[in-house]
Amino acid sequence: MKKLMNSADAFVDEMLDGLVAACPSLRRSGRVVRTAAGPAPGRVGIVSGGGSGHLPLFTGYVGEGLLDACAIGDVFAGPSVASCVEAIRAADGGAGVLLLYGNYGGDRMNFDLAAESVEFDGVATRSVLGADDIASAAPAEAHKRRGVAGIVYAYKIAGAKAATGADLDAVSAAAAATVAATRTIGVALSPCLIPGAASPAFELGDQEIEMGMGIHGEPGIWRAPLTSADAIADEMVDRLLAEPVEESSKRVSVMVNSLGATPLEELLIVYRRVSARLADAGLTVVMPLIGHFATSMEMAGLSLSICRLDGEREALLAAPAACPFWRV
Amino acid sequence: MKKLMNSADAFVDEMLDGLVAACPSLRRSGRVVRTAAGPAPGRVGIVSGGGSGHLPLFTGYVGEGLLDACAIGDVFAGPSVASCVEAIRAADGGAGVLLLYGNYGGDRMNFDLAAESVEFDGVATRSVLGADDIASAAPAEAHKRRGVAGIVYAYKIAGAKAATGADLDAVSAAAAATVAATRTIGVALSPCLIPGAASPAFELGDQEIEMGMGIHGEPGIWRAPLTSADAIADEMVDRLLAEPVEESSKRVSVMVNSLGATPLEELLIVYRRVSARLADAGLTVVMPLIGHFATSMEMAGLSLSICRLDGEREALLAAPAACPFWRV
Repeated sequence: MKKLMNSADAFVDEMLDGLVAACPSLRRSGRVVRTAAGPAPGRVGIVSGGGSGHLPLFTGYVGEGLLDACAIGDVFAGPSVASCVEAIRAADGGAGVLLLYGNYGGDRMNFDLAAESVEFDGVATRSVLGADDIASAAPAEAHKRRGVAGIVYAYKIAGAKAATGADLDAVSAAAAATVAATRTIGVALSPCLIPGAASPAFELGDQEIEMGMGIHGEPGIWRAPLTSADAIADEMVDRLLAEPVEESSKRVSVMVNSLGATPLEELLIVYRRVSARLADAGLTVVMPLIGHFATSMEMAGLSLSICRLDGEREALLAAPAACPFWRV
Repeated sequence: MKKLMNSADAFVDEMLDGLVAACPSLRRSGRVVRTAAGPAPGRVGIVSGGGSGHLPLFTGYVGEGLLDACAIGDVFAGPSVASCVEAIRAADGGAGVLLLYGNYGGDRMNFDLAAESVEFDGVATRSVLGADDIASAAPAEAHKRRGVAGIVYAYKIAGAKAATGADLDAVSAAAAATVAATRTIGVALSPCLIPGAASPAFELGDQEIEMGMGIHGEPGIWRAPLTSADAIADEMVDRLLAEPVEESSKRVSVMVNSLGATPLEELLIVYRRVSARLADAGLTVVMPLIGHFATSMEMAGLSLSICRLDGEREALLAAPAACPFWRV
């Protein structure tokens, strides 16, 4: 497992240098990336943040109709309080800032401290946490679940809601409803290598896979030999559809997300089965998202997310948006 | 190396099923993918084709302002004559069809036979071959070079030219000029696995890389231990800039393309160096393309393409276009 880098220490900063060199729409200051245009005055700002190593998550979603700013940490490590504060200030257009990030202890602590800090300056914040990974806790303890690829739906829908001029409570409510309507499960086929580490983050046997593994290699539900794509897709769909959901809508978006090395061909083979299974369940898929949305560098595997849509969420999901690696 | 599939025999057809299930803008008939809207009457059609295993190449570029139809073969194997014929007919809007595909012997033979076949029915065709891989032959034998990721520039520019209503000669000339203005070199870090094969397509040592390897594992220029991202980027830029080019324009687009497993983080680290080197050489980069554009399934590595732009090509590159995995 080889990495194209100059040094482990420079990995994140050189990645960010490359990002802003490639994207004239972005600006960087330390470990904060923001839009060059800055927050629209009077509009709610949206900030996210998290560890590096998951591109396009998190910094790749800074752009029109999505995030206003993002605080970024080392590989698989949360951003500092100072970066969170700076990102919030960068996103503040006078109407408050939504902090929308994944449910990890360190990120929560640092964003909470940052929110307190900016409150002194009169910047109102709300926090909504992505918690879509159904493999990370039982439904009764859904508040303990980790945030993974499904947070992209919350970015998109909250970003589009903010663009309508909605206030902080309304944008936060749209984000929270999207988180509540979105569930994800992943399957890992091979590990990734953290820059500078002597060995991969975990090991899997030659023909072994792990259902439910997290995007930092957190343990999943089971390990077993690789079976067919259809059998794997079926289990993922079954587990997602068994989840309690409040919505009665039969319209959903689906994300088949490569964790890194798994190619588009295999995502499409899985999507083929997923879409047939969802049709059998009486669900209509709109705007499926297939590709690299939230990765673990070169980890092989994929995650499947289902986002239940009501009329407003469907319209907001389809609203125009543009960030470096995704355009709607 | 594990693959998410049901069987090697079903790999390509199930992938195509997934593609059309995900993309209402596409239609499939056997091994041909075309736009649902069909060719615009009176407009030049554009057809490509090639082996599977390179998504988004080739079928992923069927869409508005890009390809009208695509003929697809098995993994790393060219499309049949019958598929080529069917793709050409599907793309024919009455103004002729440009056949724009990579310079590989089998593809050339089958597209040539297909062109003869449709000529009987009065469908005029021209052929332009992608031949951007500088590692595959010396400049004096540029006609022997293989087509790799750089063909995406020709798709985009020829597609935009066709959308202006230009005639077959003009669209073919735009494609040919783009091929002549585009050079690519790749570096491989690890092999891919062809579905059903007992072992990877080639082997590389634990810390070994191969400069100039082709997208089917064709031999490159040298093998040596992995060095720094900057050293690798420097050699790739040096080799590309040493190429003879007719253009005097100082404006270029650059593509940093993952061959599969190499993550966005590493593409950006390389792009950072590439953009600095091109600036030093007096070149201005517009519209850099960074991501997965032409892969070898789960191969690790990347390719770097430089496309020299004149005023018309720059405008055509920036014109709106939409296909399943790319939107401009």
